[in-house]
Amino acid sequence: MRPRDQHKQAALIEATLHQVTEHGFGATSVARIARQANISPGTVYIYYRDKDTLLEATFLHVSDRLIDTVLAAFTPRTALREALRDALGAVWRALFALALEQPRLFRFHEQFTHSSRMQPALQERNEARLAPLLEALEQGQRAGLIKPVGLELIEAFLFRPIHSLIHGHSCRPFTPTPEAIDSAFAMAWDAIALSPASPLARSDS
Amino acid sequence: MRPRDQHKQAALIEATLHQVTEHGFGATSVARIARQANISPGTVYIYYRDKDTLLEATFLHVSDRLIDTVLAAFTPRTALREALRDALGAVWRALFALALEQPRLFRFHEQFTHSSRMQPALQERNEARLAPLLEALEQGQRAGLIKPVGLELIEAFLFRPIHSLIHGHSCRPFTPTPEAIDSAFAMAWDAIALSPASPLARSDS
Repeated sequence: MRPRDQHKQAALIEATLHQVTEHGFGATSVARIARQANISPGTVYIYYRDKDTLLEATFLHVSDRLIDTVLAAFTPRTALREALRDALGAVWRALFALALEQPRLFRFHEQFTHSSRMQPALQERNEARLAPLLEALEQGQRAGLIKPVGLELIEAFLFRPIHSLIHGHSCRPFTPTPEAIDSAFAMAWDAIALSPASPLARSDS
Repeated sequence: MRPRDQHKQAALIEATLHQVTEHGFGATSVARIARQANISPGTVYIYYRDKDTLLEATFLHVSDRLIDTVLAAFTPRTALREALRDALGAVWRALFALALEQPRLFRFHEQFTHSSRMQPALQERNEARLAPLLEALEQGQRAGLIKPVGLELIEAFLFRPIHSLIHGHSCRPFTPTPEAIDSAFAMAWDAIALSPASPLARSDS
């Protein structure tokens, strides 16, 4: 079945996502992507100048799926410890649900961001979209609720474990029951939160 | 330069490590490994029956490098919170130093354990070698020092961040100063530790 024209871009992005997460960037050719999308290789170049352009378009599509999920779940309320914890917990659970439903999105995002294809302009574009979350985290740091560490450490303990728990299932199974997801978020929160007992923590929260 | 005979196995394992972390399992052929090791493909089969056997031997070599590093750094002292924290901190710092020096070991380990090549027997073999650490973690859980969660969650927050911080440098740089490594370990410890204020925590520590 030949996809309708307006669906061709979506089919190409879906096929790219599948091919790259299955076979890697090197083994993924435009011909292979076109074959899976049931589109002639010549037609691909009407939509995307070359393989790199198609890969970047797929990355932006994947990024927007993740960022839209974060923003839809996030309510910036950073004044109090419990409110910030709950707001980040809602983001965590929404991302976990998406990761369970569409693990390829996370795998592609990981592969792309850790490749030489990841350009500073793409990073800046995504961080601009994520500004409400990033600002709330910084505000939480200024308020003494979150440890005064770099964003790469916040990311490594708050969001990357979602990926490793979902992706790592073949090694040691993580069964994503609601209780296990709650336990995992409690660990992520404890990693990034300043203990109320810490001398750096705000005294009134 | 042709490696000496007694070095052929080491050269093959080194070449496998390089090829797999650079190009993935699919694109890595015995011919390619042999070429990098400067050994004729026919000679490879004297040492290793087939590609799968060579990949498994490489995984065991990598696993032993990681496990030896853990065991050399670890002193089981779990009776008190601070002693357990220090013992795990020593393991963390030793693994971090190895990851900085030889990131390919961690990348290969990740690729292998998350592939269909990871067999339960390999997992059991490695866990048997890691018994001193695993027993100390369980003892810490019984003593109310560590959260009562599955080992996959302990792993996701205690050890996987080492990998993601080392591997993720192209996205957002993590500069591994001693202070940054201390901050990262503090986050890992807070993730897995039961707060002394928790109703589940042991009262006398």
